[in-house]
Amino acid sequence: MKIILDAFGGDNAPKAAIEGAALAVKELGVQIVLVGDSEKINAVIKENNIVFPENTMEIIDAPEVFDMHEEPTSLLKKNANTSLAVAFKALAGGQGDAIVSAGSTGAIVVGGTLIVKRIKGVKRPALGSMIPAPKGSYMLMDMGANAECRPEMLAQFGVMSSVYLNRVMGRENPSIALLNIGTEDTKGGALQLESYKLLGKAPINFVGNVESREMPKGVVDGVVTDGFTGNIALKLIEGTSITMFKLVKEKLYKNIFNMLAALVIKKDLYELKSMMDATEVGGAPLLGVAKPVIKAHGNSNAVAFKNAIRQAKIFTENDVIGAISADIAKFNAEAENEQA
Amino acid sequence: MKIILDAFGGDNAPKAAIEGAALAVKELGVQIVLVGDSEKINAVIKENNIVFPENTMEIIDAPEVFDMHEEPTSLLKKNANTSLAVAFKALAGGQGDAIVSAGSTGAIVVGGTLIVKRIKGVKRPALGSMIPAPKGSYMLMDMGANAECRPEMLAQFGVMSSVYLNRVMGRENPSIALLNIGTEDTKGGALQLESYKLLGKAPINFVGNVESREMPKGVVDGVVTDGFTGNIALKLIEGTSITMFKLVKEKLYKNIFNMLAALVIKKDLYELKSMMDATEVGGAPLLGVAKPVIKAHGNSNAVAFKNAIRQAKIFTENDVIGAISADIAKFNAEAENEQA
Repeated sequence: MKIILDAFGGDNAPKAAIEGAALAVKELGVQIVLVGDSEKINAVIKENNIVFPENTMEIIDAPEVFDMHEEPTSLLKKNANTSLAVAFKALAGGQGDAIVSAGSTGAIVVGGTLIVKRIKGVKRPALGSMIPAPKGSYMLMDMGANAECRPEMLAQFGVMSSVYLNRVMGRENPSIALLNIGTEDTKGGALQLESYKLLGKAPINFVGNVESREMPKGVVDGVVTDGFTGNIALKLIEGTSITMFKLVKEKLYKNIFNMLAALVIKKDLYELKSMMDATEVGGAPLLGVAKPVIKAHGNSNAVAFKNAIRQAKIFTENDVIGAISADIAKFNAEAENEQA
Repeated sequence: MKIILDAFGGDNAPKAAIEGAALAVKELGVQIVLVGDSEKINAVIKENNIVFPENTMEIIDAPEVFDMHEEPTSLLKKNANTSLAVAFKALAGGQGDAIVSAGSTGAIVVGGTLIVKRIKGVKRPALGSMIPAPKGSYMLMDMGANAECRPEMLAQFGVMSSVYLNRVMGRENPSIALLNIGTEDTKGGALQLESYKLLGKAPINFVGNVESREMPKGVVDGVVTDGFTGNIALKLIEGTSITMFKLVKEKLYKNIFNMLAALVIKKDLYELKSMMDATEVGGAPLLGVAKPVIKAHGNSNAVAFKNAIRQAKIFTENDVIGAISADIAKFNAEAENEQA
């Protein structure tokens, strides 16, 4: 299996990306296609003594880097020579099985939707994010690909989440809930009311509404929402966790007694922080496009890149694309029959 | 000043409400109108030796209690004899200056909007919630009164928040931001794009978009959003904080060493928990209605009731209603001029 890696996406690129690729080759037995300025890639490999055994790595040269502040759609023309654009074209052209990038989220959505193209019948591709929780992680989808959504889109997010959770995360009959402001089916705005009905007809284990107060506990496997709310929620969990840890830390450094106590529990608290740190769960899948696309966290280190590559591998191995195609076709056919 | 208190709203009613009222009389020098089953109220006062000095308390009899699971609009007819409905009618009839209730949020919005009535020119009343943060609390509005909002409504929320933050919370020239998925003015859906423009023209210190990752730090005084997103955000902060404290606690009880360390820092962590506990900041104002309405937290204890009464007092004293009326009239006039 060949995973295409945008070597110049993310805060720690290209070094962390290339090191993560080498780890992935060693531990996961995949082949890697590094995309980016080949001279720089070779220099980083040499300087850091990174080892790729023979026939495990190739480079596709792409001289430019996609800047995070560029308009996502500029990927298609103005920024067509960036590592991100060239990587997506390589995926569309069959030069690899899946793609991993820690670059611009918006541009990855554009690359997936317009270069790799959608799965037939999918209205809008969406980004899922695995969020750590005490009862095990859960997937929030859409976490930002579509700021405005229609009910049919949310229902499809439910179908796609369910397939991914089952085939990549190993959840049996994953429970899928709609994020809402109350548990009753009369809650929310027009989008939630209609989405609730459609999700109830989808070929998934739909368990109704989930309130955001309960969500962080990990009470369901998948939470479906529009990309605006999903993005707000994801960043709010991050922001609240960061703020809380900062406050706890301040208390621990308050005086000498607390500092001594802190020495004892430090390791456990770091463990907790690491558990709540979203980068640990790997990358975010862009579901609904015709090939496996994984968005790695912007501040990914080598291990996070390796984890994202592992996710891309499982994604590909377990034919998530085939299963989504089949379930979406089934769901759409039933919806059409009902209308007829 | 006379504050009307729904004695039967909230999980700990009527005892906590009545005790909070007695504390408020003693500490804040207000008069209280308790609304609810007068026999039960008198029994609770007697059993618990609660003391109201002469001429500081009166009772309006209302035999029924509004059940949290009832439809909010049932307040008007089916549930017109509940303490909540009678309290709102007393406020509308001038039997007191302001109202405090820990009852159903939806019914309080109905009571404010349809019994007390809106301020002229206000499109929709909205609920603000003061959320604790390291840099000082901030107000999130709307936190759930309107699941669907138009841009003009969000702009008015900004105007009303600004007045409240200034006059009740004592913030000079309070900074108001729009909750969005990015800081650039091109971010978000149609609602955010248009609201951004309108907020920029409002007579407030509008500082642009704020991302939910930054919001928990308390970087601005007020955050404006639609009631769906606001409700999701509020409950997500609560849910994430609760989950985090639970996880920290589990680590502290992991073994004997941690437990000893925990003894040292316990007090500080409780302090932190109490700081993050939304009930500490008092009640949530319903802004845009013609009289002061404060929604106390459902699980309010006596101190929380007293704090909510204090907020109602400052709300009334500082003529928030008059200032909102003036600012909304000014804002609407400018918007009309621009269209003409």
